[in-house]
Amino acid sequence: MTRFAFTIHARDGAARLGTIAMQRGEIRTPAFMPVGTAATVKSQRPEEVRAAGADIILGNTYHLMLRPGAERVARLGGLHHFSGWTRPILTDSGGYQVMSLSDLTKVTEEGVSFKSHLDGSRHLLSPERSVEVQRLLGSDIVMQFDQLVPADAPAPMQVEAMERSLRWGRRSREEFNRGSDHAAAAALFGIQQGVLDQTLRKRSADGLQEIGFDGYAIGGLAVGEGQEAMLRCLDFAPGQLPADKPRYLMGVGKPDDIVEAVTRGVDMFDCVLPTRSGRTGQAFTADGPINIRNARFAEDQEPLEPGCPCPACTQYSRAYVHHLVRSNEILGAMLMTQHNIWFYQRLMQGLRDAIAAGGLASHARAFLQRYRARAVERGALGEAGQDRIP
Amino acid sequence: MTRFAFTIHARDGAARLGTIAMQRGEIRTPAFMPVGTAATVKSQRPEEVRAAGADIILGNTYHLMLRPGAERVARLGGLHHFSGWTRPILTDSGGYQVMSLSDLTKVTEEGVSFKSHLDGSRHLLSPERSVEVQRLLGSDIVMQFDQLVPADAPAPMQVEAMERSLRWGRRSREEFNRGSDHAAAAALFGIQQGVLDQTLRKRSADGLQEIGFDGYAIGGLAVGEGQEAMLRCLDFAPGQLPADKPRYLMGVGKPDDIVEAVTRGVDMFDCVLPTRSGRTGQAFTADGPINIRNARFAEDQEPLEPGCPCPACTQYSRAYVHHLVRSNEILGAMLMTQHNIWFYQRLMQGLRDAIAAGGLASHARAFLQRYRARAVERGALGEAGQDRIP
Repeated sequence: MTRFAFTIHARDGAARLGTIAMQRGEIRTPAFMPVGTAATVKSQRPEEVRAAGADIILGNTYHLMLRPGAERVARLGGLHHFSGWTRPILTDSGGYQVMSLSDLTKVTEEGVSFKSHLDGSRHLLSPERSVEVQRLLGSDIVMQFDQLVPADAPAPMQVEAMERSLRWGRRSREEFNRGSDHAAAAALFGIQQGVLDQTLRKRSADGLQEIGFDGYAIGGLAVGEGQEAMLRCLDFAPGQLPADKPRYLMGVGKPDDIVEAVTRGVDMFDCVLPTRSGRTGQAFTADGPINIRNARFAEDQEPLEPGCPCPACTQYSRAYVHHLVRSNEILGAMLMTQHNIWFYQRLMQGLRDAIAAGGLASHARAFLQRYRARAVERGALGEAGQDRIP
Repeated sequence: MTRFAFTIHARDGAARLGTIAMQRGEIRTPAFMPVGTAATVKSQRPEEVRAAGADIILGNTYHLMLRPGAERVARLGGLHHFSGWTRPILTDSGGYQVMSLSDLTKVTEEGVSFKSHLDGSRHLLSPERSVEVQRLLGSDIVMQFDQLVPADAPAPMQVEAMERSLRWGRRSREEFNRGSDHAAAAALFGIQQGVLDQTLRKRSADGLQEIGFDGYAIGGLAVGEGQEAMLRCLDFAPGQLPADKPRYLMGVGKPDDIVEAVTRGVDMFDCVLPTRSGRTGQAFTADGPINIRNARFAEDQEPLEPGCPCPACTQYSRAYVHHLVRSNEILGAMLMTQHNIWFYQRLMQGLRDAIAAGGLASHARAFLQRYRARAVERGALGEAGQDRIP
């Protein structure tokens, strides 16, 4: 059986239409991965996530190693068996959450030592331990362990973190290879760093390719730099990565960020936005996000997004969801999240169709114009590029 | 079309097997009605509640009149259209919640004036307004407005409340009849009061029959009197009510309460226990309730209840649900609630089957013995008769 094969079926400008074949299933790219932090895409059953069109979900190494624990998940048959999601799972390395959630982190060449935000227990995440945890979880796509520094850290610190991430990438690769049974069925992705600097990004990309990975992530973006700066970086970063491997923009993003990134050659995305927004009352629509808590929806008999084929839209009115969300009813979070996951999957399908037809530029222009126009009117768009939330 | 017809198919001791035919569907009795307080059975989709076997759910007049508001629900097409539950709905009168949830209640012969627990707004619930609200909601089974007093209130107050409830029952009947279109499709139930006193209960039952109702509820129980006292009252109360009409024990209860009450001739039940327990980690099983948060379930690969055919049990392990509930994941509440609703519906199906076969006594004995035995061992049974929670 194929371990990992990326096939590009069509190109349109820098964008690519592809599939990744893996043992647990095929991933259509460009792909959006719903986030299943704690072994669950919050408020959704696995079959609902699949019905929305998702081929792959993301699991969080940091959260899962702390609760229920990687060794426990392994004893329970791995993350797929545990959670009931049978298709591919990508796990992050834990590095991002360690830096943003835990206390008393101490970074050395060995790795990052930290105190759990749950119970204060002391842990070490190193390239070896991160890959081991991901192996215990039974991850299909393992991310290398990398070092993150704030976007506004001084330049020498940025360079050092990028260089260290390369050393950690090599150690991640070595550890991944040591788990030979797992390595025979899983893939390992490297992570490009180098903040917004083209030269640093190039050095990072070259260093990663020397090590050799199945796919390459663009890290260190969507951490507060703003959409404009992010897109300037995406004008060159994807092109620095191998053309025959998937490119994954971590933690992105808003629908318009995704459209812009796909046109620049990115193949994979993940973000908590559709699920988290679903729990705070924000529903995505082709006309921009709406806040369903708004009083104007109290007697609105339209679905969340007219024309959307998702179960939340075909069965319920905005008025009902408005009532549920205002009343803090669990069903409100369930329906909102379901719609948002469908919205993101339909967004990706639209992009894939446009690439196949060679019409991505006009498709993207039309989408962005409509998405931004009314949203700007309503002041509902928010600040772009702030989506990567731990 | 039949407005309301109660047919008794079999009797076994005091117990009855029946069906209530109504325009929106048939209700198999003995029936348990899951509680859908705020136009949703918490954490469940209507189709899931139906798949568990529920023929009817309960809606709370007090909650719905405050949010989203009865007139608003009416403008939105009624509770069925609003919530997507197309089968019968029984609505309570609001009296119980007014007394237990709201502030500054003032009871007069006219009704109960109170301040909303949500926003402090002032409202009046009278027999007329209660029935009007239930009509606006589009209720299938309307409950008369009654006066509740604490179980430990002095006897003269108990008598006065019972007498007033009869007067309010008459006014409820008159208001119900005035809504002629609604009355042509819906049913009205009276509520027997009289605390634990056989003579008072008889006077209440006789007074109600003079007015004439489609069904008769036994009110004022499961409010802290304890299971033993409640069962003593149920030894005589159901027999005081018409034999050819459904008898509904409000707010009850624990599985063993229900079994005991069915053997005493009760046909209908509602309780928040299966749904509320589902959100606090208590799962019902034939061996008594278990608390899934308990550490002994952390690596338990069995389903919540071995042999249970519900989707939560056929797809997930106790270990996974334990993890979800401990992590406060919404999916934990969804799966626990789903199992508990199935447990209650299977309980009722078991009772109906036993009545049909003429073997209720031994069925009940076996159920109670098994349910109580291991639960008592574990100290998991809790205090009976405390289940009616606002």
